[in-house]
This record gives sequence, structure tokens and C-alpha cells, in this order.
Amino acid sequence: MTADSSAAPGKVVSKNAQIAEENRRFFRGKGLFVLNLIGSPGCGKTSLLEKTLERVAPRAAVVEGDIKTTLDADRIRRTGAQATQIETGGACHLDAAMVARAIQGLNLDAVEFLFIENVGNLVCPSSVDLGEDMKVAIISVPEGDEKPAKYPALFVRASAVVINKIDLLPYVDYSVARAAGDCRKLNPNVEVFELSSKTGAGVDAWVSFLERHALSARPR
Amino acid sequence: MTADSSAAPGKVVSKNAQIAEENRRFFRGKGLFVLNLIGSPGCGKTSLLEKTLERVAPRAAVVEGDIKTTLDADRIRRTGAQATQIETGGACHLDAAMVARAIQGLNLDAVEFLFIENVGNLVCPSSVDLGEDMKVAIISVPEGDEKPAKYPALFVRASAVVINKIDLLPYVDYSVARAAGDCRKLNPNVEVFELSSKTGAGVDAWVSFLERHALSARPR
Repeated sequence: MTADSSAAPGKVVSKNAQIAEENRRFFRGKGLFVLNLIGSPGCGKTSLLEKTLERVAPRAAVVEGDIKTTLDADRIRRTGAQATQIETGGACHLDAAMVARAIQGLNLDAVEFLFIENVGNLVCPSSVDLGEDMKVAIISVPEGDEKPAKYPALFVRASAVVINKIDLLPYVDYSVARAAGDCRKLNPNVEVFELSSKTGAGVDAWVSFLERHALSARPR
Repeated sequence: MTADSSAAPGKVVSKNAQIAEENRRFFRGKGLFVLNLIGSPGCGKTSLLEKTLERVAPRAAVVEGDIKTTLDADRIRRTGAQATQIETGGACHLDAAMVARAIQGLNLDAVEFLFIENVGNLVCPSSVDLGEDMKVAIISVPEGDEKPAKYPALFVRASAVVINKIDLLPYVDYSVARAAGDCRKLNPNVEVFELSSKTGAGVDAWVSFLERHALSARPR
């Protein structure tokens, strides 16, 4: 698939759009704030979740997307949060139907945050709507600072970007200003967080951002 | 697309297979050793090429695959090697037709090594034949040691795996034994190289491997 297949006409896309809309209505009815976390393999999506869940586990649930293995859901459950695993068996991104099936295994009554960790892939998941409120792009310092420029499709759509693994800044050539600047060129309204899931630096600002959005997602 | 779409019947796949076979015949006629380099965004594919080309630039040519920008081809040309850029404009992997068009811009008469750097993606490129002699998987230490287990489709097909960025081993939790062991479980014949494109550690063994294969690719 291309990074812009959402624009293509066709049955598959419209079927996904329809199920995504059903997911969205369901999530809104529950007052959930739903995030679709997208990034390369190894950018630290699961580590970011672990660090985030240290603060919000009792109010959170997680859908883990992987091609193979349940390693990530196992890690998430150790934080005390509910988690369910989707093994795509080869598919390079989640789709709305996979998510609709997966959430049936979660009790979402007391949940405020639903985190969907997509398959590790900076390209294909970016154009596939799951019914989320927000796409979050996760990039990491050792990947290099030119990634937003080279993989723009995600960054024009992501409401927030997490620059992860800033603890490695002393050991690699990386300009946070360049990466963040390129993100803002692609989406002037983006919120950029510089963060280390290892040391915890920057996690406060990220969690405050989540709490603000969860508050406005609650039914009035 | 799925990571195993090469097995699916259908016009698109067989058309690619046919062009890949034409590419392969052309490469063999020229006595080229052709590598398809596959790995996540930021695993260090271009840096590995730069370090490799320090040794073999006059005998090498490079096809650079990116969704957007010509940053990588610009980097490669600075080594003195010939390079041509494919901008896929959204597509998440190269295909055989893109490569067939791209190599028309290269003079391959004195070339022994043709490196094809695929789009940064650990999933989709693995099942698409370009006509190469060998797929090389590139993973890097900060990505985490569980990547071969989580993204097996590439590792069952790759003849060689480069574990890149070993200079970062002191700063992250990573077991080279686990990563290499999982690669060997998926493909018992795989050759695994531990390497740092930054410090040059391990580059000798990698280049010797390339030289051996280039020698056997030469017409007799």
C-alpha cells in the first residue's frame, strides 16, 4: 500500500472508514481518549507506554499490535494496565476491524485512556483510520533527525510527536531543533515532546498533555 | 500489503516476479553482485553504505530508495560512488520495475557491487523480489534485541544480518546473543555481522564477505 491510500477510492478503504467511524462513536460514548501510537520498530513505543502507565495504569487500557509474538502485551500487563494483543500475522498495520475485535476483550467502563500501539512501521499505518482521537508519531534519537522530512505522511497527520531516547543525545549526532522544526513545517499545530522513557525526563509534560485531553473527552 | 504477499497469486505479484527475473538476468550478464538492504528507518543503512564505500566506491553503484527527499543519494555521491535516487512518493517498498528504471541512469560497466537501499521499513520490502542476489537485514542496537522475533518475515529470507550501532551497547540494554540467536533460529544459514558504522568496528569482516561474493558473481 502507499502512504496515502486513504485518498484512494475503493471498497476496502471505505469499509475501513465505516468501521473506524463505528469505533469512534463507541469510544465517544464511553468518554475515552484514544491514541494511535505510530513509529518504527524499536523507537520505544512500548517503553513509552510502560513509563506512561506508571502514572495512569488503573485508568488505562492498551491494544498491542504486532506482526508476531505477544511480548509487548506481556510487558504492558506487568504495569497493572489491561492489555490485549493483536497478532497481525504479516500485515504491516492495524485496521479498524482488528481494533473493533480486540477491544471486546477489554473492560472499558472505568477507563479514560485507550492506547493503541500500532505495528512498528513509520509508513503504512499513517493513513489507516482506527477511530482514534489522535495519531501520535514516535521517533527516537538514534534513528537520526531527518526522519520527519523523509517520511512526511505520518507527520502531516500526527497531532503530537514524541522524540524519544533523548538520554542517547550525548552519543549520537542529532539535532532536536531540526527534527522538531521539520515536524512543525509539516504540521504547524503539532505538539512536540522531548522525552526519555529510560530516565523519565520529559514524561511529566507528556502525561499532563494526556490528562488535558482525557478531561475534554469525558461526557458532560 | 502483508509480509507474505509474494506467496499470493495475482497479476501484480507475477508481473513483479517477471521484471525481477529480467533484472536478475541483466545483473548476471554484467557479473554484478547485487544486495537488497532492508531495515527500519534509522537503523543505519546509509551509514553502513558510506562506511562500505570507503573501501569499494570505485567498483560500486548504489540505488537509493526513499519515500521523499534525495538526502541519501547526496550522501552516497560524496563517497565517490555512483548513485541514483528513487523517490517512491508514498510507496512503502521498492519494486522490480522501479529498480529497472533507476539503473538506466548508472554506468555499470566497471561495477562489481550494486547496493539497493530499500525504503526504511522492516516489514513490506521483505517479500518483494527486486532481482537481487541477496537480501541483507540491518538492525541496530537501540531498536532492541527482540526485533528478529517480532518481525520474522525478513529474517527467514535474509542471507546476512548486520547488527549495527554496536558502539551504543554500553548505553542500552541489548543482548547480541539473543538477537543473533533468534536470527539463526529463523535461518540457520544466515551470516551475522556485529558492526559500528560510526567507529568502523566489524567493517573488515563485512567487506571481506562482500568481496568473496563479488568474486563468485564474476563471469568466468
